[in-house]
Amino acid sequence: MVWSFNEYLDKVNDAVAGICYPDEPKGLYEPIAYTMSLGGKRIRPSLVLMASDAFGNNSHKAIAPAVGIELFHNFTLLHDDVMDRADVRRGKPTVHMKWNANTAILSGDAMLTMATQYIAKAPVAVMPEVMKLYNNTAMEIYEGQQYDVDFESRIDVTEAEYINMIRLKTSVLLGCACKIGAIIGGASAEDAMRIYRFGELIGLAFQLQDDLLDVYGDEKTFGKAIGGDIMNNKKTFMLIKAFELAQGQDHIELMGWINAENPDRAEKVAAVTEIYTRSGVKKIAEERIARYTKDALTVLEEISIDDDAKEAFRSFADMLMSRTK
Amino acid sequence: MVWSFNEYLDKVNDAVAGICYPDEPKGLYEPIAYTMSLGGKRIRPSLVLMASDAFGNNSHKAIAPAVGIELFHNFTLLHDDVMDRADVRRGKPTVHMKWNANTAILSGDAMLTMATQYIAKAPVAVMPEVMKLYNNTAMEIYEGQQYDVDFESRIDVTEAEYINMIRLKTSVLLGCACKIGAIIGGASAEDAMRIYRFGELIGLAFQLQDDLLDVYGDEKTFGKAIGGDIMNNKKTFMLIKAFELAQGQDHIELMGWINAENPDRAEKVAAVTEIYTRSGVKKIAEERIARYTKDALTVLEEISIDDDAKEAFRSFADMLMSRTK
Repeated sequence: MVWSFNEYLDKVNDAVAGICYPDEPKGLYEPIAYTMSLGGKRIRPSLVLMASDAFGNNSHKAIAPAVGIELFHNFTLLHDDVMDRADVRRGKPTVHMKWNANTAILSGDAMLTMATQYIAKAPVAVMPEVMKLYNNTAMEIYEGQQYDVDFESRIDVTEAEYINMIRLKTSVLLGCACKIGAIIGGASAEDAMRIYRFGELIGLAFQLQDDLLDVYGDEKTFGKAIGGDIMNNKKTFMLIKAFELAQGQDHIELMGWINAENPDRAEKVAAVTEIYTRSGVKKIAEERIARYTKDALTVLEEISIDDDAKEAFRSFADMLMSRTK
Repeated sequence: MVWSFNEYLDKVNDAVAGICYPDEPKGLYEPIAYTMSLGGKRIRPSLVLMASDAFGNNSHKAIAPAVGIELFHNFTLLHDDVMDRADVRRGKPTVHMKWNANTAILSGDAMLTMATQYIAKAPVAVMPEVMKLYNNTAMEIYEGQQYDVDFESRIDVTEAEYINMIRLKTSVLLGCACKIGAIIGGASAEDAMRIYRFGELIGLAFQLQDDLLDVYGDEKTFGKAIGGDIMNNKKTFMLIKAFELAQGQDHIELMGWINAENPDRAEKVAAVTEIYTRSGVKKIAEERIARYTKDALTVLEEISIDDDAKEAFRSFADMLMSRTK
């Protein structure tokens, strides 16, 4: 029996609320509890549970590893925020702002080990396989983060390099979540690989949509100001593709905005958005998002699970891709 | 057959030299390879191998977990150096000096996960037990680090609190190294606990000796300037005990040196050292070191292993405690 995504989300929220943090030392555990209390979409742990039920009604055995995946994801955000000097996460001060950078580093380290402790609670027969997948995925995520940093000082990043970077930084964790659930559910090796691929492809679509929404999203529903990536000259799919496609005057104008010191925000965002639209970047981004989503749904069809289970994953994909924030 | 510590050290050095680092991204893996190339005493992985042979001639099965323990230890040093803003480690620039703080944070995270990958290579029958011990130990080490930070802003730290802090920050990893070797060697639960306790007690003696050598060591053999802890008002065993024992004029003078702005180094070190000696702190530190060492050797005697194996651990303890640096 496979429930809807929101029902798994409820289970995940209960499990996250049930994490026990030692009382002392407060400086180590309070920032972890704070980070986990800030909420979030809880997509990854919900996918673990959904996949484990899809293959074998085993979500009750997958709760601890699901929590582990969510702890791991939040650890990466915590350390990313230190490295990006970000002030706000989910509408609240980041840990290094509320405490300090050293606290964020050490509490993040402890979160990573806590995540590993929860992963290690997978059923013992599959724990070594789950642990291996989890560790390999973590290494890929660090690699993705490093490529993201490396790209900031380059202007010749190709689409293929960018897609590989977001695959590593974002998508493999969605794939890993699906596959951990599949392994615990008792899936065949082939099906476990397929559901991994489903998660990975949906992850690519998801990240490209994020890049698109930062430019074309509705400020009211997006939840943050539009154009943040444009103002920061962030090497998103949009900008990388515009470097490639904008011709003549558009290219000169784009470089002008990239190099402008203290440009007016509204003017820069409007002008760069125009260039994205004119040079076809918007259209290509939409096309890529549609293609990765379609590929994900095609892989899903090949998996040997009941149609109600497939329907749960399809609804999840719909929900994720119809979001406006 | 149990060899000498130095023979295990050779094995460890070969294994560390054999770690494969991916070529790309360089910004992630070069700092890890650099850190591991700086050397160090390799005490912890050598203990893993020695213990695994002592209980069951299994050191060939313990090499990967031994490397994992060394990777973990070096990860803690890497992140500690960022938090302490330390410029130099083992005579070379620290990672955050040679690269930058963000690189040190991210490469450290990757080192922690690499460590876990190596730990996960323990023989599958004992892997869950080894993994659990490793993760629990890691959490204790973060707790120890947090207490160490907390103590810096307190003047009422007791000896018991200090001993517990260094137990967490330093000793449990020596205990963990011994116990992982014992588990892989096939020790009984009681003997695994005893060798853990041996490592833990030797670790306490080792750390207290570190505190003592910073004051009374021979600058030539110590390898760094004497009195660094005194100059930094570091809350070592020496200072904590002096707060407790220095009376009257000595106490006033000690507080004066603690609060002095830009004191002359030679004068402050000489004066505080005098107070340590006069108030009996030196004698008590020596007594504690002797007691923890003796307790470690007593626990060792109770373990059901051949005397040549015990002798290897005794020689190790001698070597560690007769060091002058």
